Amino acid sequence: VRQQVRKASFAIEEVQLTLPVSPRAFVDFYSGIHHASNVGRMFRPEQAPLLPNYRHVPIGYNGRASTVFVSGTDIKRPRGQQKRGENVVFEPSRELDFELEMGFYIGRTSEGRGIEPDEFTEYAAGMVIVNDWSARDIQRWEYQPLGPFLAKSFATSVSPYIVSFDALEPFRIEGMPQDPEPLPYLQATQPWHYDIELEVSLKTDKMTKPQVICRSNTKHLYWSMAQQLAHQASNGTIIEPGDLYATGTISGPEEGQFGSMLEASWKGEKPLLMEETGETRTFLEDGDTVAMTAWAQGEGYTIGFGEVIGTVHPAG
Amino acid sequence: VRQQVRKASFAIEEVQLTLPVSPRAFVDFYSGIHHASNVGRMFRPEQAPLLPNYRHVPIGYNGRASTVFVSGTDIKRPRGQQKRGENVVFEPSRELDFELEMGFYIGRTSEGRGIEPDEFTEYAAGMVIVNDWSARDIQRWEYQPLGPFLAKSFATSVSPYIVSFDALEPFRIEGMPQDPEPLPYLQATQPWHYDIELEVSLKTDKMTKPQVICRSNTKHLYWSMAQQLAHQASNGTIIEPGDLYATGTISGPEEGQFGSMLEASWKGEKPLLMEETGETRTFLEDGDTVAMTAWAQGEGYTIGFGEVIGTVHPAG
Repeated sequence: VRQQVRKASFAIEEVQLTLPVSPRAFVDFYSGIHHASNVGRMFRPEQAPLLPNYRHVPIGYNGRASTVFVSGTDIKRPRGQQKRGENVVFEPSRELDFELEMGFYIGRTSEGRGIEPDEFTEYAAGMVIVNDWSARDIQRWEYQPLGPFLAKSFATSVSPYIVSFDALEPFRIEGMPQDPEPLPYLQATQPWHYDIELEVSLKTDKMTKPQVICRSNTKHLYWSMAQQLAHQASNGTIIEPGDLYATGTISGPEEGQFGSMLEASWKGEKPLLMEETGETRTFLEDGDTVAMTAWAQGEGYTIGFGEVIGTVHPAG
Repeated sequence: VRQQVRKASFAIEEVQLTLPVSPRAFVDFYSGIHHASNVGRMFRPEQAPLLPNYRHVPIGYNGRASTVFVSGTDIKRPRGQQKRGENVVFEPSRELDFELEMGFYIGRTSEGRGIEPDEFTEYAAGMVIVNDWSARDIQRWEYQPLGPFLAKSFATSVSPYIVSFDALEPFRIEGMPQDPEPLPYLQATQPWHYDIELEVSLKTDKMTKPQVICRSNTKHLYWSMAQQLAHQASNGTIIEPGDLYATGTISGPEEGQFGSMLEASWKGEKPLLMEETGETRTFLEDGDTVAMTAWAQGEGYTIGFGEVIGTVHPAG
């Protein structure tokens, strides 16, 4: 034991990483504009892809904190109520999906005061990668009129390191243009977007190595995390240490950059080809492993976020 | 001090009641069928009042736990983003409302297992009265497509006593007929509705005594609390001790039985008359006090739930 204590570092195989913080509040935003547009195109083809409020309000909803898990936790396929043709059934989801997101943990209470976007890092401690596992068939049936509920609450996975905003300071960038101009409570004087590379890989149980199926970047967020937090705090709610806020699915504008199977397979119409085995995928099958990584690339150095990984197991 | 310790009981004026449990999860269902029908009639007049999923799924959404307060906590009118005519503004809500609900606290973890409706009281510890304060103008603008968010998260008030389900055993009744027959995971062999009288009163700052504006009963819930919990647990999410589940607004079928100002004033078209002062109300004004009480009436005894009370203060 004494020898162990003297070691300055441990090989990754020697340690078991745990959830950095078990949050009380888990909130999921919807700030990936390409994701929101793709979903609109698929499900409301007769309308404009984005709803009228999208460029005014950083849309978000409350998620379930009790099932926020650390990377590596097995994901059991959820059962749930779904509409199949004319029938309503309670069965294992057939449209299990991942969502590529980033998240930030809070380090300091707001005590119910508003927070300006420029105060972001006075409250936000650091970032993690988030996989917001989703059951699309359950979601489609339950979400009107009060939003996603059981389709999302069975599991959410986060990476085991919190990367501090101090470390990310060199990677702050201007975001995409915002039109119309945001209301004053959402305006910042500094750039609050980040240049962080994102990658998702999929490995079926027949494959020997994962295949990259999505490359994206946090710059594809319409609303910055600073604007998300300012919006969340704007009604006087109490922001608490340990709160976890996720960005929403971060898809890029092009094929190969889509942060969910729903988009990558265009709701099942364009199955993904697994090159090693010739298998195809629309949604996730039992035995599939999804891994997400993220990194900020400096000149001569890289800040890594580790990974968030999870394997799908059959419904119990 | 010694004298105090020997006392067997204290006058209510001597003590400060506190939040019975500060929940980690606060979930709000939508099981008041008359409320859901009224909202449908007001906001989707061209459609059937209930959405197609209503009689299949106990609809619910995750709320914010950090702003669950004990009865007596002052309610500050929230600011928020709203659409006013053609303009999008960030201003104090002009449509502040209450929602008459009951809630149940969990006493035991599910560890991710399903829960059958007949197992309800093995997990649920007892009930409280819940006022789910709501800002209708903020809600209307933000809620598509992911549900209510900041319109609800500024404050939720609960009564300070948890009334145990043991005490409520004599008040279990059959609920209203459910058609279509619920899926098996929502079926119970025992009656799981309750006969609990509910009352809401309003007192403006000019009035000397409150006026009752709503009389209702928990029997007006379509889905029982046992079905709500079975649904919540059905996807494998972890039910935790301290979780608070609210029923949704419990309106009766007739005028005088509506559990929100939205319904009582029919979205402002039929202002309520305050008889003592001749004032009228559509939504809540600063200085208004809302009090909710609940009781189960036995033969020769009453089980009281105390009250949940709150006074509206101007936006800060």
